[in-house]
Amino acid sequence: MAQLIADRRDVDFVLHEQLEVETLGRHEKFAEFNKKTVDMIVSEARNLALKEMLPTLTAGDEEGCTFENGEVKVPEAFHRVYDLFKEGEWIAMCDNPEWGGQGMPATVSLAVKNFFHGANFPFTLHVLLAHGAGKLVEKFGTDKQKELFLKKMYTGEWGGTMLLTEAEAGSDVGALTTSAVKNEDGTYSITGNKIFISSGEHNFTENIIHPVLARIEGAPAGTAGISLFLVPKIWVNDDGSLGEANDIVCTGIEHKMGIHGSPTCSMTLGGRGKCRGTLLGLENKGMRAMFVMMNEARLDVGMQALGCASASYMNALNYARVRIQGRSPDAAGKDAPGVPIIQHPDVRRMLLHMKAYTEGMRSLLYYTGLCEDKMRISDDADEKARYQGRIDVLIPIAKGYVTDRSFEVCSLGIQIFGGYGYTREYPQEQLLRDCKITHIYEGTNGIQAMDLLGRKLGLNKGQAFTDLLGEMKKQIETAKKIKGLEDLAADAEKLADKLAETAMHMAKTARSEKMMTAFAHAYSFMDITGDAVMAWMLLWRACAAAQNLEKGAKKKDISFYDGQLKSARFFIKSVLPLSMGKAETILESDDTVMQMSEDAFGGK
Amino acid sequence: MAQLIADRRDVDFVLHEQLEVETLGRHEKFAEFNKKTVDMIVSEARNLALKEMLPTLTAGDEEGCTFENGEVKVPEAFHRVYDLFKEGEWIAMCDNPEWGGQGMPATVSLAVKNFFHGANFPFTLHVLLAHGAGKLVEKFGTDKQKELFLKKMYTGEWGGTMLLTEAEAGSDVGALTTSAVKNEDGTYSITGNKIFISSGEHNFTENIIHPVLARIEGAPAGTAGISLFLVPKIWVNDDGSLGEANDIVCTGIEHKMGIHGSPTCSMTLGGRGKCRGTLLGLENKGMRAMFVMMNEARLDVGMQALGCASASYMNALNYARVRIQGRSPDAAGKDAPGVPIIQHPDVRRMLLHMKAYTEGMRSLLYYTGLCEDKMRISDDADEKARYQGRIDVLIPIAKGYVTDRSFEVCSLGIQIFGGYGYTREYPQEQLLRDCKITHIYEGTNGIQAMDLLGRKLGLNKGQAFTDLLGEMKKQIETAKKIKGLEDLAADAEKLADKLAETAMHMAKTARSEKMMTAFAHAYSFMDITGDAVMAWMLLWRACAAAQNLEKGAKKKDISFYDGQLKSARFFIKSVLPLSMGKAETILESDDTVMQMSEDAFGGK
Repeated sequence: MAQLIADRRDVDFVLHEQLEVETLGRHEKFAEFNKKTVDMIVSEARNLALKEMLPTLTAGDEEGCTFENGEVKVPEAFHRVYDLFKEGEWIAMCDNPEWGGQGMPATVSLAVKNFFHGANFPFTLHVLLAHGAGKLVEKFGTDKQKELFLKKMYTGEWGGTMLLTEAEAGSDVGALTTSAVKNEDGTYSITGNKIFISSGEHNFTENIIHPVLARIEGAPAGTAGISLFLVPKIWVNDDGSLGEANDIVCTGIEHKMGIHGSPTCSMTLGGRGKCRGTLLGLENKGMRAMFVMMNEARLDVGMQALGCASASYMNALNYARVRIQGRSPDAAGKDAPGVPIIQHPDVRRMLLHMKAYTEGMRSLLYYTGLCEDKMRISDDADEKARYQGRIDVLIPIAKGYVTDRSFEVCSLGIQIFGGYGYTREYPQEQLLRDCKITHIYEGTNGIQAMDLLGRKLGLNKGQAFTDLLGEMKKQIETAKKIKGLEDLAADAEKLADKLAETAMHMAKTARSEKMMTAFAHAYSFMDITGDAVMAWMLLWRACAAAQNLEKGAKKKDISFYDGQLKSARFFIKSVLPLSMGKAETILESDDTVMQMSEDAFGGK
Repeated sequence: MAQLIADRRDVDFVLHEQLEVETLGRHEKFAEFNKKTVDMIVSEARNLALKEMLPTLTAGDEEGCTFENGEVKVPEAFHRVYDLFKEGEWIAMCDNPEWGGQGMPATVSLAVKNFFHGANFPFTLHVLLAHGAGKLVEKFGTDKQKELFLKKMYTGEWGGTMLLTEAEAGSDVGALTTSAVKNEDGTYSITGNKIFISSGEHNFTENIIHPVLARIEGAPAGTAGISLFLVPKIWVNDDGSLGEANDIVCTGIEHKMGIHGSPTCSMTLGGRGKCRGTLLGLENKGMRAMFVMMNEARLDVGMQALGCASASYMNALNYARVRIQGRSPDAAGKDAPGVPIIQHPDVRRMLLHMKAYTEGMRSLLYYTGLCEDKMRISDDADEKARYQGRIDVLIPIAKGYVTDRSFEVCSLGIQIFGGYGYTREYPQEQLLRDCKITHIYEGTNGIQAMDLLGRKLGLNKGQAFTDLLGEMKKQIETAKKIKGLEDLAADAEKLADKLAETAMHMAKTARSEKMMTAFAHAYSFMDITGDAVMAWMLLWRACAAAQNLEKGAKKKDISFYDGQLKSARFFIKSVLPLSMGKAETILESDDTVMQMSEDAFGGK
């Protein structure tokens, strides 16, 4: 039967044949996650996604959220899904069972999220935020804060958010002006206005816990003076009972291009001078706490985008197999019968583009999860640091590169449907609209590129980036020895070497008087790093496929493995020459972008 | 003052300094179109666009069109604009004054359309279609048909459409099944169902004239058996008076991603067996008639996309100049004051990308119009053929390449606004949604790529393509002699040579047993042809700018000309290396796309 959302065979391939996730089970922490258990979890998630979540995708888009007198209603159909999420305990998949978590490997949770996000990520955004807020409580909360809030957040009884952005403090978080004044009882009075708060208000839960970034009176300017507070919608008394409503209100929701099922709220704190919160973590260390959460949040955004791309690919593929239109360019004559459009060269090009990117990005994201798992179970400090470094370097790719490419995949997904793709009759156009937000939130993709160049490239004196290149090289060496992959390995090696050269050049330029020029090329640098990582991932897949074919695969697996070899070949042959070209432009250090006078941009 | 929609200085630059449109005035046909007149026309159009059309853009999107009992209502605010269009005689700008046209050069009309489409192309789509239908009557109608319909269509008193697509006949027009049976009085009875009919029904005009593609009983299968008919919504009697309602009804409108102000109608003809039409042109020659209209229609679609890109750039530029956020990466410290985001390297990169593409595409489209004008006034058959060939080759670029790149520009236009760009508070997200349709209608961009490879490359035994390369080379020779442009000329020459090599390769492959492989690379071939044309256009601009600077420009022009030099440099330095890479992939003739078994795409 035709697959939807994500190709289960491919998900399984990454988990078991590429990443060998069950080897994590050798460690006591993940002892119960053998292959059978992992498969069962993925099956259960997939069922929920297919049967309950996917049918609410369009309804969520069309109905959207409504705002009236400070109250927000989510799409009606979402309530049942929310209840099922609570019941199935899908909110805190990887967290400590002590607090209601499932203790699952991150790798497995990403396979689950692939289905959830692909089915309806405007819905899953609600629970991601609740989980993220809970994580902050787990990491930085006092025992009392954990006792009062954590389990209720991880189990979905209460919602959670993140109040960061203000109208004049978006990418520049340090410019925020929300203030906190300490009260005699140890709580803080908070005053300010926040915008773009996902799930800031909704009718899923009776209480919502808001982590809020604010500045304590007298604190330093900029990011060094930001503290984190826990501000519940309804005050929680010391005994856990609910008190009175706190002075935090939603003043409106945004009308947006997409993710209509997720309310984007403006929030006013202390409008009546009565908003109370408790300090979460240390004074003036709020930004540091944010950074701890950032990798997970950014990886989630990459997953959201991949979810859209993956679903768009499945829809396009299914459509291309049944839609009859036109004859083959090499058909005998104009009277030849019509063919399914999957037979047309340009449709095949689009499908293979969608496939290769979807697969490569899937591997890249799950692999980042695997690094997280391996870091967690390692007892070796050096090894732990190595995994952390690898994750840190991969995150801007997992967010910036993956969301860019996913959007392109979604655009092709419309194209394959022709005029129908532009209508709301099919989900393709919604997937594109929803996907667009992933370029923007949790740090715009421009910020990701700056993060890669400005922070990650020089991390541990460049060791983290070098280590990543080393991992690529290992896979290339393996591929060199496999028949049929030699030329792909050679091409990938050329790019890896070119990337190393470009990285050296960028690191040097960024420390020179041409620093601004380096930053003007940061985006291209993110692009070619991403291309190299994709080539690595697809080559890795091709190696696994070739080895399994060599061993003698089952009949129905043969074409799947062949598809793996082809994805790698297509990507390496059609994308790498462009990456090499892009590397050349970086190495030339052309600084036209910085040389432009502001008037030269025109428009006056 | 900040410009909106399109940079007037740049529009004037292309018209007068690059293309020297006033030289057309030397020919009696365009004698009255001197510089002063041209400027006055553009000013009037710009005023109308800014003051009347742009304010209806958002309203048109939010209100959309409504369908009830076969009747369609357009957004209320559009009615006033429609009346102003009729009054200003903006519908048939280039057509014969005998029939209500203005006899304007196409080049000038494209400058006008730049403002109109950029202000609100879902509105202008209505009048474009009325004009296109009129053009069919002018070209193929009998004297009687012209007398009855033409002036009323060109002046906007009646609307017009094009009934082509059917549910099973989209890209494959030849599969259509709408039938026509000749009646004793010489009219035809038409029966069938059409979909995706823009402006198929609306409340602008009392009558709508529908050109309809249908198959006469007994006609050959495929495109060779298609005829064109004129089917009025209200029958027009021989004396020009209106008769009874014809049996053609709108049965619904599509809910779409964008262009909400343009109703996309499903139409049923002859549901009661009483739909009458008259033959337009010759029996079985309907497709040929369509092809005559196609160049104009496709150029218009390119203009729509450029309109979106151009408006998005102006908005982004204006926003980047006033939005304060963050400090410069090379700022002294974290306490440095915030700066307008136009100072950030990555924002500058995005703006310069938007600028260079918008400018290059503007030149490319206006130039195509200039070729049209020069062809029309030429008395030399060879010269006429040369211009026609050049237009024919440029059209798939003007439609396919330009709409692709415009969409990317619109996506960056959202990005520069950050989170605000995703909200409906600003027009950026609508411009992206509207722009997406331009990839699809009037032949999907995949069809454009096939057209370039399958028809245009070999046109006149390849002479038309060779001639285009020759024009590029001429400009490159000029640029070589201009100080500061030598290296850009050298790079552009490399690409032109590589394009020539690739074209030879493609032409050969398309005629070999590897034909399907050639078609699998058709899209990349369109891309690099487009890149080369853009490099040519931007180099041409740079030459004009450099020459004007040399002559001693006015102070306020100096930064404009400098911006021209920079656009060319940015494009040539950052895009051409990628084009060269893309050419290499074509030359390698990798045929992975065709080697894929259908099962290898997965998803089963």
